[in-house]
Amino acid sequence: MHQTSQDMQSCVNECLRCYQTCLGMAANHCLVAGGKHVEPEHFRLMMACAEVCRTSAHVMLVGVAEHRHVCRACAEVCEACATSCERVGDMQDCVDRCRTCAESCRKMAA
Amino acid sequence: MHQTSQDMQSCVNECLRCYQTCLGMAANHCLVAGGKHVEPEHFRLMMACAEVCRTSAHVMLVGVAEHRHVCRACAEVCEACATSCERVGDMQDCVDRCRTCAESCRKMAA
Amino acid sequence: MHQTSQDMQSCVNECLRCYQTCLGMAANHCLVAGGKHVEPEHFRLMMACAEVCRTSAHVMLVGVAEHRHVCRACAEVCEACATSCERVGDMQDCVDRCRTCAESCRKMAA
Amino acid sequence: MHQTSQDMQSCVNECLRCYQTCLGMAANHCLVAGGKHVEPEHFRLMMACAEVCRTSAHVMLVGVAEHRHVCRACAEVCEACATSCERVGDMQDCVDRCRTCAESCRKMAA
Repeated sequence: MHQTSQDMQSCVNECLRCYQTCLGMAANHCLVAGGKHVEPEHFRLMMACAEVCRTSAHVMLVGVAEHRHVCRACAEVCEACATSCERVGDMQDCVDRCRTCAESCRKMAA
Repeated sequence: MHQTSQDMQSCVNECLRCYQTCLGMAANHCLVAGGKHVEPEHFRLMMACAEVCRTSAHVMLVGVAEHRHVCRACAEVCEACATSCERVGDMQDCVDRCRTCAESCRKMAA
Repeated sequence: MHQTSQDMQSCVNECLRCYQTCLGMAANHCLVAGGKHVEPEHFRLMMACAEVCRTSAHVMLVGVAEHRHVCRACAEVCEACATSCERVGDMQDCVDRCRTCAESCRKMAA
Repeated sequence: MHQTSQDMQSCVNECLRCYQTCLGMAANHCLVAGGKHVEPEHFRLMMACAEVCRTSAHVMLVGVAEHRHVCRACAEVCEACATSCERVGDMQDCVDRCRTCAESCRKMAA
C-alpha cells in the first residue's frame, strides 16, 4: 500500500511529540518525583522510547522505504513504555502519547 | 536465550563503527565523488543507516529488553545499505561494516 | 537573566522545526536537484545544522543550565547554514528557518 | 591553526567514549545506586553530556568548519558533568572520561 506523504508527516509529528513527552517527563517529572518513577526498568524505558521515537521520525524525514522496520520497532518500544507508565501511575500524558505514537507507527509499518 | 553483556558490548561496538563509516563516507567520499554516489536512494540509505546504527547502540547501552526490536530493524537497514553500496561500487569498507553490523544485530535480535 | 519556561519551549519548537526543514530539504530537495545543491560544503552544513538543532532542543528538554553553550553553538551553525542556502539559491524555506532558529538560540544563550 | 585529521579522529574517539560512559553509567550505575546518583541536577547533566558528546563527534565526522563551536560547547558540558560526578562520588570513570574529552574538545575548538 502506498502511504501518502501526509500520513507520513502525521507520523513524524506523533513521533516527535512522543519524544518530547518521554524526554521531558523523564527529566522533569520522574527525577523530581523519585521513588517508583526512577526505578531502573521504568526510567530506562523512558530514555529508550525518547531515542527510538526521535529516530523513527528521522528515518521518515530522510525518506527510505526501510522506515517500515524502524516504525515497527518504535511501536513496540512505545507500547512497553506506555505499560510501564501505567504501572508507575501519575504518567497519563506519557501513556497517551506513547499509545498514539504506537498506533501511528503500526500503520506506517504495515 | 540470555545474552551476555560481552556479546552486547560487541554489538554496540559494531553499531558505532558502522555509524562512523556510513556517516563519514557519505559526507567525505560520496559527496566528493558525486555521480552515482549522490543518487537520492543511495545517499538516503547511507544517512538512514548511520542514524539507525547509532540508535541501536544507544538502546543497548541504556539496557532495555526491547533492544531486540531495534536491533532487528538495524539489521534490515544495514543489509539494504550494503546492497546499495555494492551496486554503486567503490564502497567496500561500507559494505563490509554494514554486513558485519547486520550479522551482529541479528544475533542480538534472536 | 531568568528564562521563562515558555521562552525555552518556544526555542525548542524553533530548533525542531529547523531540524526537520534542514534534514527534509537535504534528503528530498538537494539530493533531487543535484548540482550546487550537493556541493560538499553546502550539503555537509545542512547535515550538521539538522544535528545541532536537534541536540539544542534535546538539552533544553532535559533542562540543564549549560544549554546556553549548546544554543550558542547552534546559532552559529544555523547562521552558516542560512548563508550557504542563500548562496546556493532555491532554498528560501531553509534560510528562513535557520535565521529564525539562530535568533531564538541567541536569546537563550544570552 | 590547521588541525590534522588524526587530531580530529582522536577527538571523535574521545567524544564517543565519553558518550558511552555517561549514558551507560547513568542507566546502569546511577539508576541502580539511587540516592545522590539520581538527584535531578546530576542525572540531567549525565543525560545532556552523553547527548552533546555524541553530537560533537557527529559534526566532526560530517566535516564542517563550525565543529569548533560545537566542540567548545561540549567541553563546557563535560566539565560541568565531571564536577557533578566528583561531588556525587563513586563516579571516577565518568570524571576521567569527561575531563579527557573536555581537554580534547578545547583543542579542537581553539
